[in-house]
Amino acid sequence: MTELSDAPKRARVVIVGAGFGGLTVAKALAKAPIDLTVVDQHNYHLFQPLLYQVATAALSPADIASPIRTILKGQRNSSVLLAKVTGIDTNSGEVMAGDRRIPYDYLVLATGARHAYFGHDDWEAYAKGIKTIDDATALRRKILLAFERAEFEHDPVERGRLLAFVIIGGGATGVEIAGAMAELARKALAVDFRSIDPTNARIVLIEAGPRLLPVFEEHLSEAARRSLEELGVEVRVSTAVTDCDEAGVSLADQRIGTRTIIWAAGVQASRAGQWLGAETDRAGRVKVAPDLSVPGYPNIFVLGDTAHVRDMDGKPLPGVAPVAKQEGKYVAELIQTRIAGGDLPPFRYRDPGSLATIGRKKAVVQFRRLRLSGYLAWWLWSVAHIYFLIGFRNRLVVAMNWAWTYVSFQRGARLITGPDPEPEIRTDKGPGMERLHEVA
Amino acid sequence: MTELSDAPKRARVVIVGAGFGGLTVAKALAKAPIDLTVVDQHNYHLFQPLLYQVATAALSPADIASPIRTILKGQRNSSVLLAKVTGIDTNSGEVMAGDRRIPYDYLVLATGARHAYFGHDDWEAYAKGIKTIDDATALRRKILLAFERAEFEHDPVERGRLLAFVIIGGGATGVEIAGAMAELARKALAVDFRSIDPTNARIVLIEAGPRLLPVFEEHLSEAARRSLEELGVEVRVSTAVTDCDEAGVSLADQRIGTRTIIWAAGVQASRAGQWLGAETDRAGRVKVAPDLSVPGYPNIFVLGDTAHVRDMDGKPLPGVAPVAKQEGKYVAELIQTRIAGGDLPPFRYRDPGSLATIGRKKAVVQFRRLRLSGYLAWWLWSVAHIYFLIGFRNRLVVAMNWAWTYVSFQRGARLITGPDPEPEIRTDKGPGMERLHEVA
Repeated sequence: MTELSDAPKRARVVIVGAGFGGLTVAKALAKAPIDLTVVDQHNYHLFQPLLYQVATAALSPADIASPIRTILKGQRNSSVLLAKVTGIDTNSGEVMAGDRRIPYDYLVLATGARHAYFGHDDWEAYAKGIKTIDDATALRRKILLAFERAEFEHDPVERGRLLAFVIIGGGATGVEIAGAMAELARKALAVDFRSIDPTNARIVLIEAGPRLLPVFEEHLSEAARRSLEELGVEVRVSTAVTDCDEAGVSLADQRIGTRTIIWAAGVQASRAGQWLGAETDRAGRVKVAPDLSVPGYPNIFVLGDTAHVRDMDGKPLPGVAPVAKQEGKYVAELIQTRIAGGDLPPFRYRDPGSLATIGRKKAVVQFRRLRLSGYLAWWLWSVAHIYFLIGFRNRLVVAMNWAWTYVSFQRGARLITGPDPEPEIRTDKGPGMERLHEVA
Repeated sequence: MTELSDAPKRARVVIVGAGFGGLTVAKALAKAPIDLTVVDQHNYHLFQPLLYQVATAALSPADIASPIRTILKGQRNSSVLLAKVTGIDTNSGEVMAGDRRIPYDYLVLATGARHAYFGHDDWEAYAKGIKTIDDATALRRKILLAFERAEFEHDPVERGRLLAFVIIGGGATGVEIAGAMAELARKALAVDFRSIDPTNARIVLIEAGPRLLPVFEEHLSEAARRSLEELGVEVRVSTAVTDCDEAGVSLADQRIGTRTIIWAAGVQASRAGQWLGAETDRAGRVKVAPDLSVPGYPNIFVLGDTAHVRDMDGKPLPGVAPVAKQEGKYVAELIQTRIAGGDLPPFRYRDPGSLATIGRKKAVVQFRRLRLSGYLAWWLWSVAHIYFLIGFRNRLVVAMNWAWTYVSFQRGARLITGPDPEPEIRTDKGPGMERLHEVA
């Protein structure tokens, strides 16, 4: 490639991670005089807030994900690389992905979060969270198979385990999953089985703290709890989990037999901090400078769930989408300003409020002075989520899916995919088998 | 369970397979005085004709599949069992699924087809067909990853292999896949890459016989060929494949380097014939009596792709949906008639014609005296496929997906799912790497 010796070289910006934060930076740099490379281990941007709906069979993966290339295709300065980053060489200024090396002048790490198990990493085998599409379809498979197996299970104790679903973690994620599970069991599957009654499935939501949704005000936490209990969810607050295994969950005072434990209780940062050897907090988030750069590396920025950023009260900002997006806009503007020779004041976050939905028609909203619960909150939640989806097509599809589910109570993606399920080995041929031919 | 000793026991009907054939029998028996059990190794009914659209990222799996339980939920006499059948005990009259045994008075085997490799079973590792949802998402992953890898491939020979796609088999399936692949490469992906030009991807359709679509009349085969060539597909007829391996396809006179071979050239019956020890044809299909029962077992029926049924000219009926559906209706009526003490004349098939689509706006239709090609044929194909989908929701979703793809040329399900792709190991850091930062 011949270079004109007096043409200034364009700055090379590399963004690792195409979630809310990374994609916001990329789009904000669309017209910047730079060469942009976006690196992600998946070929799609995922709208994570709705992932639990894939796990509970209401939406398909493609409804909430868009190929990164399609999102960025109009940006002539952008290139997309599907790769898994393995480290950063800060001396040579290169991102390492396997044997591949990607040089940068400015680097943005927006690699998100992983689940954390508070020192009980062995629980991860039994209590999986949902962070990726494959997590969600795997959980969907697990949930639907539990009902299928329960239908022909003779042992009432095992049937009880199959029809019990335990969600650990009472934040927005846990609340939303619990509500959706209740809808699935009590509505969508209600008349589909002959031996079992899915409406009797037990759904338990466990929270270690004194109330659900700790980021909301108390009366909204109460509204959420009531809505869940109306849906038949057992809510247990001030309850710690002492153990998880393949047959159940142990609490301080009792044991719940279950084959499906869903983890929504803790997250930690991605490995970005380790790649940099930077100072991190206990969750692994990188303690960034007021301009979101890594101390000692003014050209490396960390944002989103992987960054530890303090707000005006000195508290760390939560790992939610609006935080990542505001940080992304700031970093994009800062990079362009610095290239032009200027600078910006430190980053400041403006809180746009919080939302959480509970099942089909209820939600809680806390936004500036606005406090809502119930139906109106649910409408606002739906509109906001649809608005923030990337891509007109996804918005239309999700809106229609929800309209369908609302009207019909049916869920549009009730598929068990993956390897063919091995039939459980049964050695007895007891009275239960004849039930196959009972007049229902 | 107490039985009244003088109440007649209802006949137990077991259907294995919930495809077109099996599901037609099940639905036709909705009001029959029987106890019905439907057994399938998946929890969903799959609309196979559109599976290639999942493989080419135009539709999501849930758009073309419906849970069997939902389809049958209104039938109080029906029970659904998710299990993989392993054999039939004709002495005791039981279906065997692992250690589970399901007794029957009437048995219907509608277990469909698998791919056949004409004695070259070793090719199956390199040239996969699409028969299930997991086949389709695996192929989708393979195709999309091929483009992703080609984008950063330095070696032009390897890049050529990655950007070459070979479809073996010029029947309706191969033609439809070839057309969809061309649409994907030339439209949906066209501007999404910076180093490669997807519109230059090579798509080759290979047919051993003298023309494509042998079941259609010659002029329609020609129309299909022309449409494919207009889409940039290389059509090779009268060409036999001599070998398949991981780096390409060998023909009699040349070799095509490719990393993606799609098999659409041959099918064989499921193992039902082996379960019964019945007489089968060379494709493993059970040679049934004129009433579709297995010779010697008047209460066991085989239908659909697994059955060898002769038409008025003595030729075996093809493995297509209308055949399975008409056979299913017949068997359901026959079972009810026999239970009531009567009988029916032998099965007779009425041919409703053939359809095949080529890409976005072309198709061929052959129906009674009607011969169509081009746009009108394509509209008819679309309407027919939407009509035959099970479930209003799926019809609406597929219609909207197609409208979207038609208008935008974008494909709605371009996700690479499954295990995270390992980045290819590159040891050289040649000029290609700097291309990442070229001004596009």
